[in-house]
Amino acid sequence: MFSPDTYQNRRKALSKTIEDGIIFLPGNIPVPMNYPSNHLRFRQDSNFLYFCGLDFPNLNLVMNTGSGDSTLFGDDLSVDQIVWEGDRTSIKEMAGLAGINHFRPNKDLSKHLKKKKQSIHYLPQYRADQKKLMEQLFNGKGSSKNLIQSVIQQRSIKTEEEIIEIDQGMVVTAEMHKLAMMLTRPGAKEQTIVGQIEGFALSYGRRLAYPVIFSVRGEILHNNEYNNTLESGQLVLNDSGAESPMHYASDITRTFPVNGKFNKRQKAIYHIVNEMQFEAFNYCEPGKSYKDAHLKAASIAVEGLKSLGLMKGKVEDAVATGAHALFFPHGLGHMMGLDVHDMEGLGEDLVGYDDKKDRSDQFGLAYLRLAKELEPGFVLTVEPGLYFIPHLIDQWKADKKNNDFINYDKLDSYRDFGGIRIEDNIVITNEGYRILGPPIPKTIDEIEGLMEDNA
Amino acid sequence: MFSPDTYQNRRKALSKTIEDGIIFLPGNIPVPMNYPSNHLRFRQDSNFLYFCGLDFPNLNLVMNTGSGDSTLFGDDLSVDQIVWEGDRTSIKEMAGLAGINHFRPNKDLSKHLKKKKQSIHYLPQYRADQKKLMEQLFNGKGSSKNLIQSVIQQRSIKTEEEIIEIDQGMVVTAEMHKLAMMLTRPGAKEQTIVGQIEGFALSYGRRLAYPVIFSVRGEILHNNEYNNTLESGQLVLNDSGAESPMHYASDITRTFPVNGKFNKRQKAIYHIVNEMQFEAFNYCEPGKSYKDAHLKAASIAVEGLKSLGLMKGKVEDAVATGAHALFFPHGLGHMMGLDVHDMEGLGEDLVGYDDKKDRSDQFGLAYLRLAKELEPGFVLTVEPGLYFIPHLIDQWKADKKNNDFINYDKLDSYRDFGGIRIEDNIVITNEGYRILGPPIPKTIDEIEGLMEDNA
Repeated sequence: MFSPDTYQNRRKALSKTIEDGIIFLPGNIPVPMNYPSNHLRFRQDSNFLYFCGLDFPNLNLVMNTGSGDSTLFGDDLSVDQIVWEGDRTSIKEMAGLAGINHFRPNKDLSKHLKKKKQSIHYLPQYRADQKKLMEQLFNGKGSSKNLIQSVIQQRSIKTEEEIIEIDQGMVVTAEMHKLAMMLTRPGAKEQTIVGQIEGFALSYGRRLAYPVIFSVRGEILHNNEYNNTLESGQLVLNDSGAESPMHYASDITRTFPVNGKFNKRQKAIYHIVNEMQFEAFNYCEPGKSYKDAHLKAASIAVEGLKSLGLMKGKVEDAVATGAHALFFPHGLGHMMGLDVHDMEGLGEDLVGYDDKKDRSDQFGLAYLRLAKELEPGFVLTVEPGLYFIPHLIDQWKADKKNNDFINYDKLDSYRDFGGIRIEDNIVITNEGYRILGPPIPKTIDEIEGLMEDNA
Repeated sequence: MFSPDTYQNRRKALSKTIEDGIIFLPGNIPVPMNYPSNHLRFRQDSNFLYFCGLDFPNLNLVMNTGSGDSTLFGDDLSVDQIVWEGDRTSIKEMAGLAGINHFRPNKDLSKHLKKKKQSIHYLPQYRADQKKLMEQLFNGKGSSKNLIQSVIQQRSIKTEEEIIEIDQGMVVTAEMHKLAMMLTRPGAKEQTIVGQIEGFALSYGRRLAYPVIFSVRGEILHNNEYNNTLESGQLVLNDSGAESPMHYASDITRTFPVNGKFNKRQKAIYHIVNEMQFEAFNYCEPGKSYKDAHLKAASIAVEGLKSLGLMKGKVEDAVATGAHALFFPHGLGHMMGLDVHDMEGLGEDLVGYDDKKDRSDQFGLAYLRLAKELEPGFVLTVEPGLYFIPHLIDQWKADKKNNDFINYDKLDSYRDFGGIRIEDNIVITNEGYRILGPPIPKTIDEIEGLMEDNA
């Protein structure tokens, strides 16, 4: 946890934006796996973590923005529970750790809220338990747009101590990625390597920020199956990241050859993706829009694919019409923080766009999660990729879509190429940007060097 | 999955117990971790697995016990979803795999159920999503006691193919336990070893059947913290098990010395626990009650603790009054199957007791989950333990509880002993019982032998 001051200051700053009201933040409760007392691994709610840092189940936080008071609701363990589960921090101590001045048992929560005359504000919920709680407490009155916007405003700008937490937390992620490269060899199973890198994170007490993507079918963008056996000549795409001790995400992708050596065709596509990222970085500074960075990466993709004979025509026209999205169908990146897609539950457009109307409905660009002007303290991913997606190629070819820009005939021999993505996490600084975490092999030489000794 | 016949036969057998009615079994849906599209690892509902074996999210099963027809409700992926997530088995194919003759999209579910004139039966739910679904569909009409009893009856007797699945699935669990012993040494962190054994299971595509207990504070019965560093002279208790590929649980405990050598005091207590298990096994045969096995283990505990001077008085009286429960406060074991506490969500008393009134309210005995007469095909745990729980010792001593049977003065020097539990999984056969899974070092010699080479 950060110091009590940090959480007090965050609550103070939030309270200033909501005039004389009540803010209700429920913490998460355990989710049963297959019967009531057998639970899935606990994950605290990110907003709750942000405003009080307490990583325990069954807590609730009420802030009074008029008085500035906060109350923590929760229950101490009974002696019986201590015998079975061991002791835990008392609610009084928890309140102290988070700089909260009042604490009460959960049974008082409903009465406490109902007594309040001020308006009550809460955030959109994503779990059924919390949705039900909100219905019970507030009879279907919706979440508060004011509160949503204030929280997004506040969480979007990462403070120095948050950046240190993310930076240091990424040591485990970097080692996970190196371990994956060292374990990769023809004949290994995807599942084996996935288990070992997740186990590595767990051995440091870290959970993963999202389900691992580790596949020779890298062209399937959110592929969470691990049933393939790795074969020489294939590329494998590893998109994975551990949470920091305080549950800040990391989100890194590397793509590398199963046999440790890129072939000529793989090298050519890899170079283009690397170049897309390199050029996008140049747009990463305060005042520039991330949409422009995305479009720049798209134009680099078209240039590169033209040089390989896979695309044709004028680069600007191809990008304007979205022809590159056959190969680069997703956005360049997204905000990252306590959530890997930071605050996505509060509304993707509110987080990533200055104005909702700015969001394109063009295939590809429509998936861009972050488009707005960058500010110092933003933490985001930069993750260009190029993919050969048989389903999509067949669909576009049949529809004669973007025939002026795509050489469908030449594409046939790439159908089993898979996909390449390179992803890093950066913070926007006053001067530009800084890549977070320790370096992870990324150039062809670095990757081939690390994999040289694989049996 | 088993063959379509297996699931058809299970549904047929269940249908016979419910005259001309509708049985509704909802499958599980993914649970958001921290925002709607970032999910916790999916676990299918155990009853759904039992009656159709389909390990995919967002499915629902409706059985018509009159006609014998079943209908699978679920939705195929759109082309967009296939681009992002990859292809998956079609609903039609799924129905075939489970021997189900009809399939329809989920949007038809509510209409389909509302059209039925027969009475609708469903089981108690443990997740908020499903609870809400049941409220919406059936306006708070409760679950069906008939159905609960039929399902318990059926799932209690494991078939030959289920036993093979459990038996073979335990290979991974056995290796997890050996790995833990080999990694254990003074200076290692609990967390490190927990991560490595969970990673080992994950590398075989297995999830854990329940959160690992791995602690030098073995006296905390459900301890899920891993913050200690292992010290020479301590014992560590490892209670963990992987699921089989079809999600059958395993549940094994071993206790071993951090430095690889039991000291004299540890040996003495270990011998008693081992003897408790050995004697309990003698009660494991058709027609004998598991309560008697539990009480036999308790009497062995008293005899052993008397020989060490920690208890005194007449053994039968000590057991009758529950004095042993200071050291052996939990039950001897429980049913095991698709849930580690099998079917606990359907009602512990219905699963484990012939008659609810049989359940004791005496501390210790009250926690016995399985007491009824054993039948061939029951799969269960046999897990005696002895613990020195400072909280409980202080409470009993202050209350002068069972002064006639406990030598509180002698107990002082055992306050930091921790706890020992030995747990195996067995199936009741026609002749007696059989221990499931490959052997895992258990005798003092076996454990010390395996740990000999630890650095």
